Parts: sequence; C-alpha cells; structure tokens
Amino acid sequence: MKNLFCFLSLTLLLAGLPLALCAQNNFVLAIHGGAGSLSREGLTPERETEYHAKLQEALLAGMEILRSGGTSLDAVEQAVRIMEESPLFNAGRGAVFTADGTIELDASIMCGATLNAGAVAGITTLKSPIAAARKVMENSPHVMLIGKGAEQFGYEQGLEVVDPSYFFDQRRWEQFREYLRRQQMRGAPDPADMRGTVGAVALDIHGNLAAATSTGGMNGKRYGRVGDVPVIGAGTYANNASCAVSATGHGEYFIRYVVGHEISAQMLYKGSSLEQAAGHTIMEMLREAGGTGGVVAVDRQGNVSMPFNTSGMYRGFIKADGTMETRIFPD
Amino acid sequence: MKNLFCFLSLTLLLAGLPLALCAQNNFVLAIHGGAGSLSREGLTPERETEYHAKLQEALLAGMEILRSGGTSLDAVEQAVRIMEESPLFNAGRGAVFTADGTIELDASIMCGATLNAGAVAGITTLKSPIAAARKVMENSPHVMLIGKGAEQFGYEQGLEVVDPSYFFDQRRWEQFREYLRRQQMRGAPDPADMRGTVGAVALDIHGNLAAATSTGGMNGKRYGRVGDVPVIGAGTYANNASCAVSATGHGEYFIRYVVGHEISAQMLYKGSSLEQAAGHTIMEMLREAGGTGGVVAVDRQGNVSMPFNTSGMYRGFIKADGTMETRIFPD
Repeated sequence: MKNLFCFLSLTLLLAGLPLALCAQNNFVLAIHGGAGSLSREGLTPERETEYHAKLQEALLAGMEILRSGGTSLDAVEQAVRIMEESPLFNAGRGAVFTADGTIELDASIMCGATLNAGAVAGITTLKSPIAAARKVMENSPHVMLIGKGAEQFGYEQGLEVVDPSYFFDQRRWEQFREYLRRQQMRGAPDPADMRGTVGAVALDIHGNLAAATSTGGMNGKRYGRVGDVPVIGAGTYANNASCAVSATGHGEYFIRYVVGHEISAQMLYKGSSLEQAAGHTIMEMLREAGGTGGVVAVDRQGNVSMPFNTSGMYRGFIKADGTMETRIFPD
Repeated sequence: MKNLFCFLSLTLLLAGLPLALCAQNNFVLAIHGGAGSLSREGLTPERETEYHAKLQEALLAGMEILRSGGTSLDAVEQAVRIMEESPLFNAGRGAVFTADGTIELDASIMCGATLNAGAVAGITTLKSPIAAARKVMENSPHVMLIGKGAEQFGYEQGLEVVDPSYFFDQRRWEQFREYLRRQQMRGAPDPADMRGTVGAVALDIHGNLAAATSTGGMNGKRYGRVGDVPVIGAGTYANNASCAVSATGHGEYFIRYVVGHEISAQMLYKGSSLEQAAGHTIMEMLREAGGTGGVVAVDRQGNVSMPFNTSGMYRGFIKADGTMETRIFPD
C-alpha cells in the first residue's frame, strides 16, 4: 500500500512541478468518507486497501479537473460522486437505512465566490444527490428542496433516476439488522451508528473555494430525519473570504454548533488560522459538548485542515505540487 | 390607536415597576410578523389596527409567562402560536400557497442555555408547527424532521391535528391567484411574494435566551422548497453567550448568509454590540447582496434590535419595565 502511495506521490510531484512554480496555479482538494469509532482491528487489510484506493480515485478525478483549470465546484462534485457510487461509504449506493428500512439521502453544495448554495433532503430515486444539490443551486431560485418536491425537480432537470434498490448494499443491510437487534437490547442509539457522510472541499486556480457533502444519514434514523448535511452553514459552507468546510459526524451537534460557519467566523472575526479555527471547533467546542465527528477544510492559501475527535476518519488531500495523502486513523 | 398604546404602556409600567427594580427580574420579548414591501397606502386603518392588536396580544401572552418566572422557551412558543392561529400572518392559519396550491409549513425553536434546537419542514396537518418543533427538540434525539416523518412524530406526541383546509384563508387564496396571473405575465418571482414568517425572541428572568420562528414560506414557492425558517443558524438562533435571533424575509439569502449565527459571531468574536451586529448584517451585508428582510434580536442584557431593509416589518417588543411598542413602518 505504502509503495503505491510513494509511487503516486512521486509521479504527481513530477507532473505537478511546473504548475507549482506558478502561484496562480495553486489548487488543492481534500475529501472525507466519514468519521466514527473505527478500529484497526475491525478493518481487514483488504478492506483498508479498498478505502485508500477509492479515496485516491476520488482525489485524482478531482485533481484532473483542477489541474486543467476547472472549477472547485466541478472538482468537489466529481469527487463526491465517485464516493456516492461506491458502497464503501454511507452516501448514495451503500447508504444506511432509516428505522423503517428505507433509504433517504441528503446532499448540499456551496460556492465560496458567490455564496450560492443548493441542498436536497429525503432523496430516494435520484442516483446522485450531490448532482441534484448542484442543480438546485444553479437552476432554481431556491437553496433547499426536500422530499418529493426535490425529486420532481431532479426529474425535470434530467438527472439520472434509479430504482431505490440501486442504493441497497447487503453489508449495510446486515449492519441495520444488527442495529435493530442492539436497539431492542438497549434502546439508545450508539455513536458508532452515526458515522457516515462523504464530502469534499477545494481551492481552484481561479482562487475560488467550494464545498460539497452527501450522506445517507444516521443508521436507524427516524423516517424524515435530516442531519447537518443539507444544512448550509452546518455540514457544508464555503466563503472565499475565509474557507470551505465539509463535515461528518453526529449531525445534530453540527447543526446546533453551526460548525461550517463557526470555523469561517473564527477566521474572519477572531483572526484564527484555518488550523486554529477548525481545530478549536472540533477538538474543543464539539468535543466538550459530546459531539463526535470531524471536518475537512481548505482556505484560499491552499492550507488544509482535517481535525476529527473520533478514533478514525476516512480522509485525504491532493495538492498542486503533487502531494497526495490518504489516511483513516490518527497520524 | 396611540391612546391604546399609551394606556397599555402606563398600566404595564406601573405593574412592572417592582420587577424592574430587581436586576434578576430583567426580561424582554420581541416579535415579528413578517417583513416586506408594505405601504401605508396598501393598509387600511382597520387592518392596521388588527395587526397592532394581534401583535400586542402575542406580546402580552408571552409577558405573562416571563413575568411569572416562566422560561423564554415557553414565552416565544406561546407568542408564535398566537400569530400562527391568526390569518393575518403567513404562518399556520393564513399561510401562503405553494406553486401547486397546497400549504406547507416550517418552524424551528432554539434554547440559548443548552443550544438545543428543534425544526420541522413541510408540515400539512399539525395545527401548530412551532409546537411540533418544540417536541422535536425535547422528545427526539434529532434536530430536524421533514415531511411525513415530521407529521408522524407529531401524531405520536399527541399534537393537535387539523385538516389541511384549517390553514386555508380566502385572502391568501386570492393573493395566490393574483400571483399566478402575474407569474404568467412576468415569469420571475416578485420580492413582495416572499414576505412572511412570524417569530419571537426572549430573555427570561433566569438569564436564558430563546428564539422561535414559524412560516408558510414563499407565495407560489416550489413544492418541497424550504426557506431559512427551519434552518438553525439561519432563520433561528439562540446562544446565551451572545443573542437570540428570529429572521423574516427572502429565506434563500438568510440561509446563504447564515444570518442568525452571523449576528452571534460578530458579537462573540468581533466585539460588536447587538445593535451593531444585527444592523451590519441586515442593513449592509444582506442589503448589498440584494437580500430583503429583517430580524428581531435580544441579548442577555435585555437589549432589543429590530433592523429591516424592506419598507416595513410587523414587529414589537415588551420589557420588564412595562414598555411595549408595536410598529409596522420605519420609526
């Protein structure tokens, strides 16, 4: 695995050198595939390799867009789509189940240059919730559409429609049945059931930031429950004046602490660096409140911060100089 | 009208004096009934009187709770309920119609002491959306429930259920038909169609802040559209460390600018007063972006700020010393 990283890093480093020499060509993409109580013992080497490979695929796809002068919006959407299509992550295909055994998907996207944003919640038949959120942002006068109204809008926009069974994943179903068994014994939800979400943040060569997040929500969540993902300011936020943030974790806490906008506000008004603001919000404010999770964040200088207060977070970044890293556990 | 104000103010002033002498007995309630392109000419004296009377009724009901040592949460919920039940305002009974001619209601509530929050969206049969939001906050592990899942939860909680026709108001229906006629001629939504929302913010004698907001949304809104009202941090926000905010206006802008949390962050990190933070956010940030609307806000010292960048906002406040004011147009 490590050899593959080194090889990829070297290749990208060499390919990226000419770009890195030009400051205007600064770009960066950071992604996450969920945070939670992960353990090294609970992850087979094969499965770990699969996660790294999929994170790298998403990073490389987004980087292709950024390197060729594409927008941060296109890059974050593309990176998120790749993770939505993989059953490894709790978004799109492979999403967790509601308490009723159905699948309901949420997503949102935000443009740091314009503060335009789009969000959808309660999606059941649109293949890519993040594509639906993008359409809401660009082709509707609204920011947030929910349920059947959101789906109807997606159909009109010509988005790909799938049968709800497309999202079904046997492993998730077994997790859900296991969850139901535990629920009968305990009654209270386990933080481990709350992990999920995929997301991406990027800076493009035009100096614009963007953020995107997509999720199946919380395992065994109540029918109709919406977490932080489609809540602009909470799970997703981007502002060229400060940073772009995509969150993952126990969504209710991320809503109450307005996490994305909180990090931005600390940078704008408190003079915090990206690292300080994201770190303080996740490792102090949220941790003290009992809110588990993490964020990936970038600023306009291309700095990356990926703090999490859980035992693991699937994450990675790629920079214009070719540096690429993917990780699951603390450094 | 003015005589009635003076009489009420005097009565309350005398009744409130003993309380006002004790600093711990400081409390305040501020409410709004929507902001928009209102004109003095468009409002008959009779209708104007009706608005003032209903705002006063809501203020007095909330004050009864606060004066007797009740919580700010109870006071804001009660004030909002009274406005929900009146067809004068775009919330509960008297809500505007979606593009499909249906009614969909959103509401949220937040407690400044705990940062707990509850929100519902897409309600069609629960009589009081704000009561539903309160139940989500207190009796569910979630913050936001939407559509049929939210309604189902409300039924289980024993909330009052009504036929959707309960919310129907002939005047709103005529406004909607007029809207449809104009839409056919123009195609673009008119900012005047976006006014709506009722809300309340309060400080109680225990020093706790709370905020609540309820709405029928935007006239002719797309089926499934959710504005800023159920978005914690945008239309509703409360934090004992800073302020409580309830917003009204063109919801999409209030989401993108995360208005409630923005005002709070300017107070916490920039050292702004309530007046400065609310004024800057509404009169500069939002106005420059083209976002119409306003907020009512209170802080822990009992200061009140009610800025709006439209030609009018139904609003009022009542303080522990008995001062009560209700207004529609700029001072």
